[in-house]
Amino acid sequence: MFTLYSMQRSGNSYKVRLALARLRIPYSLVEVDILQGESRTPEFLARNPNGQIPLLEVEPGRYLAESNAILWYLAGGTPLAPDDRVDRAEALQWMFFEQHSLEPNIGAAFFWLALIKGGRDLQRHSLEDWTEEGERALAVMEKHLTGRRFFVAERYTVADIALYAYTHLAHEADFDLKTFPAIRAWLARVAAEPGHVAMDETAPLLAAAQ
Amino acid sequence: MFTLYSMQRSGNSYKVRLALARLRIPYSLVEVDILQGESRTPEFLARNPNGQIPLLEVEPGRYLAESNAILWYLAGGTPLAPDDRVDRAEALQWMFFEQHSLEPNIGAAFFWLALIKGGRDLQRHSLEDWTEEGERALAVMEKHLTGRRFFVAERYTVADIALYAYTHLAHEADFDLKTFPAIRAWLARVAAEPGHVAMDETAPLLAAAQ
Repeated sequence: MFTLYSMQRSGNSYKVRLALARLRIPYSLVEVDILQGESRTPEFLARNPNGQIPLLEVEPGRYLAESNAILWYLAGGTPLAPDDRVDRAEALQWMFFEQHSLEPNIGAAFFWLALIKGGRDLQRHSLEDWTEEGERALAVMEKHLTGRRFFVAERYTVADIALYAYTHLAHEADFDLKTFPAIRAWLARVAAEPGHVAMDETAPLLAAAQ
Repeated sequence: MFTLYSMQRSGNSYKVRLALARLRIPYSLVEVDILQGESRTPEFLARNPNGQIPLLEVEPGRYLAESNAILWYLAGGTPLAPDDRVDRAEALQWMFFEQHSLEPNIGAAFFWLALIKGGRDLQRHSLEDWTEEGERALAVMEKHLTGRRFFVAERYTVADIALYAYTHLAHEADFDLKTFPAIRAWLARVAAEPGHVAMDETAPLLAAAQ
């Protein structure tokens, strides 16, 4: 059985919990509080030298890091992965976009505004950059979603899961989605998917069944 | 035939040119000078709303963005992609690491120090952060490469191509690789691969054959 190292309020961790819930894959959950340095202990660094969560133990003693690589691994051979070769590459394109253009801005702003007391004052200068770059990323997403139901292949895939995590937290990071109607409609569409779980309610399937 | 929109001195573009050369795939090359705003024209934005290179036209009128998604697409079914499912996920893990921890730091420093006149003064404050975070990323790579020949599956894959691009430019971005012997040995190993081309000598196969 998989063991997932995750933090409940981490968007990157939520992606993996959402995919596991959707695919009805049982797993063990280890809560890692990165705010208390628990991802930088010698024990954790032995599992992931990059000191980050989420981290999935895919085989005994073999660990997979990077939320979107974990998503790709879990989605393989399931309806969450597109069938067509170009569609699969497009899903990865949006997942790289997410890690390069969305998460470093909206995710960083969420971290400092929602999780760190006094974060707004500590990061006043960076917040301006994150807001500007985050708005630019949202505009790219809005343009793509206009006239589309999902990001790739007109159905719900791992690309949507990857992008949903921090986009649905944007309002907690001071982003206003009022001017992004296509994004708001897509967020509602993802949340209405069968098997969807909210960030705060995700729990391992096995624990829920006990 | 593929058309690649690329800039000669872009590390992200180089990745794709290196993979195409290695796979002996012919393509047309369109040079896009991002320093002259050529990736932000209405014509280019119609192809890639995110306004970035590299961009690969994979089918007439269908464009794939994000260097590592393009690499993954090109590598599919070739020796550049690992065979095993977990190995493939590990390759993607390192490619997401590259775009999240390496490129935003070493790539950004390279851009402002090597491509922009006066960039050092313009980005003095950011350069401190990029140096610190870039060193941290290099340390993670050094640890992984110690005792390994390549990043994944003990052979040359797209993960190596993705990581090579900016790591081999690190010295132009003020990084000193003296304390990273495993990385230096790996750089030499990649450069010695059959079919390897340097950043400045990559040219489309067809043009070279003409």
